Amino acid sequence: MKAYAQCTKAELQAELQSVTKEFETLKAKGLKLDMSRGKPGKAQLDLVSDIFTVATKPEDFMDGSLDTRNYGELQGIPSARAYFAELLGCKPEETFVGGSASLNMMYDVISKAHTHGLLHSEKPWSQQGKVKFLCPSPGYDRHFKVTESFGMELITIPMTAEGPDMDAVEAAVKDPAVKGMWCVPKYSNPEGIIYSDAVIGRIAHLRPAAPDFVLMWDNAYCIHEFEGDFVSFAEIITLCREGGNPDMVFEFASTSKITLPGAGVAVMAASASNIAYMTKLLSIEVISYDKVNQMRHVRYLQNKAHTLELMKKHAAIMGPKFRTVVDALDAEIAPLGIAKWQRPKGGYFVSLDALPGTAKRTLALCKEAGVVMTGAGATFPYGVDPNDTNIRIAPSLPPVSELTSAIQVFCICLKLAALEKLLAA
Amino acid sequence: MKAYAQCTKAELQAELQSVTKEFETLKAKGLKLDMSRGKPGKAQLDLVSDIFTVATKPEDFMDGSLDTRNYGELQGIPSARAYFAELLGCKPEETFVGGSASLNMMYDVISKAHTHGLLHSEKPWSQQGKVKFLCPSPGYDRHFKVTESFGMELITIPMTAEGPDMDAVEAAVKDPAVKGMWCVPKYSNPEGIIYSDAVIGRIAHLRPAAPDFVLMWDNAYCIHEFEGDFVSFAEIITLCREGGNPDMVFEFASTSKITLPGAGVAVMAASASNIAYMTKLLSIEVISYDKVNQMRHVRYLQNKAHTLELMKKHAAIMGPKFRTVVDALDAEIAPLGIAKWQRPKGGYFVSLDALPGTAKRTLALCKEAGVVMTGAGATFPYGVDPNDTNIRIAPSLPPVSELTSAIQVFCICLKLAALEKLLAA
Repeated sequence: MKAYAQCTKAELQAELQSVTKEFETLKAKGLKLDMSRGKPGKAQLDLVSDIFTVATKPEDFMDGSLDTRNYGELQGIPSARAYFAELLGCKPEETFVGGSASLNMMYDVISKAHTHGLLHSEKPWSQQGKVKFLCPSPGYDRHFKVTESFGMELITIPMTAEGPDMDAVEAAVKDPAVKGMWCVPKYSNPEGIIYSDAVIGRIAHLRPAAPDFVLMWDNAYCIHEFEGDFVSFAEIITLCREGGNPDMVFEFASTSKITLPGAGVAVMAASASNIAYMTKLLSIEVISYDKVNQMRHVRYLQNKAHTLELMKKHAAIMGPKFRTVVDALDAEIAPLGIAKWQRPKGGYFVSLDALPGTAKRTLALCKEAGVVMTGAGATFPYGVDPNDTNIRIAPSLPPVSELTSAIQVFCICLKLAALEKLLAA
Repeated sequence: MKAYAQCTKAELQAELQSVTKEFETLKAKGLKLDMSRGKPGKAQLDLVSDIFTVATKPEDFMDGSLDTRNYGELQGIPSARAYFAELLGCKPEETFVGGSASLNMMYDVISKAHTHGLLHSEKPWSQQGKVKFLCPSPGYDRHFKVTESFGMELITIPMTAEGPDMDAVEAAVKDPAVKGMWCVPKYSNPEGIIYSDAVIGRIAHLRPAAPDFVLMWDNAYCIHEFEGDFVSFAEIITLCREGGNPDMVFEFASTSKITLPGAGVAVMAASASNIAYMTKLLSIEVISYDKVNQMRHVRYLQNKAHTLELMKKHAAIMGPKFRTVVDALDAEIAPLGIAKWQRPKGGYFVSLDALPGTAKRTLALCKEAGVVMTGAGATFPYGVDPNDTNIRIAPSLPPVSELTSAIQVFCICLKLAALEKLLAA
């Protein structure tokens, strides 16, 4: 089939008839497939089973002279802080190793900014009138919702192939009500791009009007290549310091997609002053995080080199899934000229831009045919994609066999929605 | 020695000389002992080592058809909810099983009340002007600090031998600015008393002026007897419902002092409506809590009866420690009439009321002699004991041998401070 834009109305109608037939056939299969969230698949979970037996005796839970089985060490056990410092390229004293959820740590930073203020806040954000937050989009719905939940105004910043549109960011931060920005700098969610050095440099050198502007740097996929070797990344804490913004950034990461989702270990990295400030606030809400799990992780993951070996095994599972998805799009959709996407080498998503006005309809059709996808609009502030065009595909959970069916359904639905749109025009 | 109050000045001076000598001898030993916090001792930690091997294979982490190793089930895995429901005597749907810290769940309730309001709040507490919170005292410093950290006014409610002074509570809740009360109903922190049924009944039937008054029911020591058999306790959710306050209470518990401190599993119990409301708010900050640890705990603790057997083993370690402390007080201090204390049968503390105006001095002397105690005043709002009389003793951490020395030091310091006070009068 040629590009739909080159087709006559009669050709499009013939194609609609043919695609509708395919859709009905697939629908009749009663599929139940899920490409909605970035959940690792069972094979990945099975991969790390040794973590359950790597520490079993009381002495295995000694971190030097520290008994990780008792209360204390709110900032995390020394070996876990050293581990994450190596992974992120920062210093151990710039880390705070917490519980199992990095989202929880991000929430804590924003929540504390709201109720108590950050290190350089004149007063809590809740007492500063309207607060605005920059949301490079498409982006991660859970990020946007954290700031939305505190009544902040979400400002959409367009994404480019190199990261957030920095002209837009630099203009926006002149407004003192703009208090921060969400970023997923490596294998961005959902586009899977890596911010360029130029973009990161401009971010580190921002001159925000707000003295307490906070860069929420979610390095969720810092070592999550599924194609090719580990790609090193900019150490944002140092860059911000060199850019004259020593306390501007909080970086986040976790082992949720290294060991176990929701049962791993999360880390927050920031200037030592920021860590000290947040420690004081966090000491009110928790005596100490799960240090037994921290110790278990250090014993299992050991160091960066050893962890990268594990990531190769994840890649061997993830790579074929992403290839299944992107190859199908290349074969089925590319010739038709009805969508654009990237071919990421890491992360957990493929981002696709369908014909404007067809994303919701595509996903409604998918649902009808038994394939659950991330809701259309989810990648934009307030869940509203102004062009109704972006679709996030999450290929990690289903096995390849199911994924093959799922992406087949998706392609058919994409075509159907495009044809309906084109024929209605 | 007879009661100090019966002594002549000369007798007191002789005693001072003798006690000072004893103090100097002890001080010279250069002790380093800690009776400051309710940390379990090493023997207790070693007791539960089987928890590290009770689940080691992928299939061990299946809760029925649920794979606890992946994201999901924000409210906790079904078997953990059922386990805690049995423990607390409520229904599984009235539980929310979270991470490793019940303090964190308490903080979340207060924090959400402040920023978003509770189920029956007209608006967030932060937008309601002055908010007041009832603090039965002596009580738990970390409770008080949570509410203090949001700028709430802490109202001291005297404790009686049966629980909070209910006349004072009933009078206080007529003020619509009074939004809640902290309670440790069983083996209260620090006094180790159990609220009487009469007191609990009056609490459940409170008629607070605030529609969103919240009872923070920290059942931290619900099965933590160290002397005698398990003592059953009132099921507060049902009682509140029967009292016409179906959504007034949040109950909290954790396995921090059943399995591992800070690495156990915490639970929040409340009406199904409250659980639904809190789930919605918590879904913004976390995808799901550590369900792998929840599953590990269910496999290890099994059910209430099995858990009570484990608690007997804890009791065999804790009992002698408490007896060491209280026996020393009975022998050394009781005849002198310079302090009062309870002999608790569970919990983690002994509360002692020294002569008014001598608590701080006693603890300063202890510190001088190398014994760290909970700071004087910590058991009262804002860390200020108006009579400078209450001292919290935490006998759980040191082995009995060290405890014997520590309590000896403490008794000497108590005497010394009392003598100084009496002689200065």
